[in-house]
Amino acid sequence: MQKIEKLEEQIGYKFKNKELLIKALTHPSYSNEDSCERLEFLGDIILDAIVGIYLFKKYKDKNESFLTDLKSAYVNRNFLHKIGTSLNLKKYIRFKGSKILYFDRFVESLIGAIYIDGGWRKVEKFVKNFILKIPLEPLKDYKTILYRFSIQISNSPPVYQIVKEKGPQHNKTYEVKVKIKGKRYVGRGKGRTKREAEMNAAKDILQKFNIITSCK
Amino acid sequence: MQKIEKLEEQIGYKFKNKELLIKALTHPSYSNEDSCERLEFLGDIILDAIVGIYLFKKYKDKNESFLTDLKSAYVNRNFLHKIGTSLNLKKYIRFKGSKILYFDRFVESLIGAIYIDGGWRKVEKFVKNFILKIPLEPLKDYKTILYRFSIQISNSPPVYQIVKEKGPQHNKTYEVKVKIKGKRYVGRGKGRTKREAEMNAAKDILQKFNIITSCK
Repeated sequence: MQKIEKLEEQIGYKFKNKELLIKALTHPSYSNEDSCERLEFLGDIILDAIVGIYLFKKYKDKNESFLTDLKSAYVNRNFLHKIGTSLNLKKYIRFKGSKILYFDRFVESLIGAIYIDGGWRKVEKFVKNFILKIPLEPLKDYKTILYRFSIQISNSPPVYQIVKEKGPQHNKTYEVKVKIKGKRYVGRGKGRTKREAEMNAAKDILQKFNIITSCK
Repeated sequence: MQKIEKLEEQIGYKFKNKELLIKALTHPSYSNEDSCERLEFLGDIILDAIVGIYLFKKYKDKNESFLTDLKSAYVNRNFLHKIGTSLNLKKYIRFKGSKILYFDRFVESLIGAIYIDGGWRKVEKFVKNFILKIPLEPLKDYKTILYRFSIQISNSPPVYQIVKEKGPQHNKTYEVKVKIKGKRYVGRGKGRTKREAEMNAAKDILQKFNIITSCK
């Protein structure tokens, strides 16, 4: 229990109900019934709402596509995994079997738990302090950009293909390639979800076509 | 202005700032700068949060996949379009050029506008009265079901292909077909987004394989 208190200190929030915090840090491999999963569902939504409302109010002159892309940067799995790593969550996770490699879901379940235990204000404070204070660039939706480009130059949508898929259910990596009909370039991308791999493949081929620059 | 007041009466909320309500009902074709788009971004997120929190608290014994599917039923475009139709939004929309056929986005922008004008409680009341009070079945994620099934029987993911795409940017329909490597069945689906068309195609092929029954 010592350990949990250290985490509370670090996140700046003391749980009234410690069970909730423990549940948020329990991987389904440890206990299916008392795992983080429901809190993760909730935290994902709460995070979206806090980030979205914050950006809407902060960027009064920006359009919804800018807001969408900037929100994506704050709620995407890689970024949240980094937050989980910086909070040292791995020291607190309860699990059985293969080691937990990614911590994004536990950042979400932690957010869900703080909301249930302390309400909106408290969880908003946590999100502002640990997530929104980090300056990020908008995360562009490369799949949509590629889709429009592909229709324009080939009159057909890009074709994605999963070329590799490895790892167990919870620690999967996908490798995807993408082509445009009649064109020679091939884009390749990896990711922990199909969507993420496709996004990276789309970005890769757009760079090859010089539609976007590779330094961004 | 008479008209707007009638709508306020119907939704049970009187705007302090009428401009906000008018903006929520303005299609980008009418005014790009003062359109519903930013409010739509916000309303989408607020709706997700209200529905998600409500379901999380109501269904204490259900797992996150049930919660996700039931939330999808309440936030999906077809359902929101029906809500927009039942609120008779078409009488209030400002637009130029081709007629507006779908009203889901205006339900979202209306939700965003109520939140900005009246705060969380007011918008929660609106969502509970007009959206959550309607009993719905969970909307299954057929693409994920099909993905798992396809890997199981063919060791490769299903292949989706867009076969038709028609209509202008804002009123598009997609037609998609899907196949599993080495199998003869073809699933077909239509939708207003690629994802929706793919979802329907996945459902169609799953029915052909008798994985799901067609009466559901």
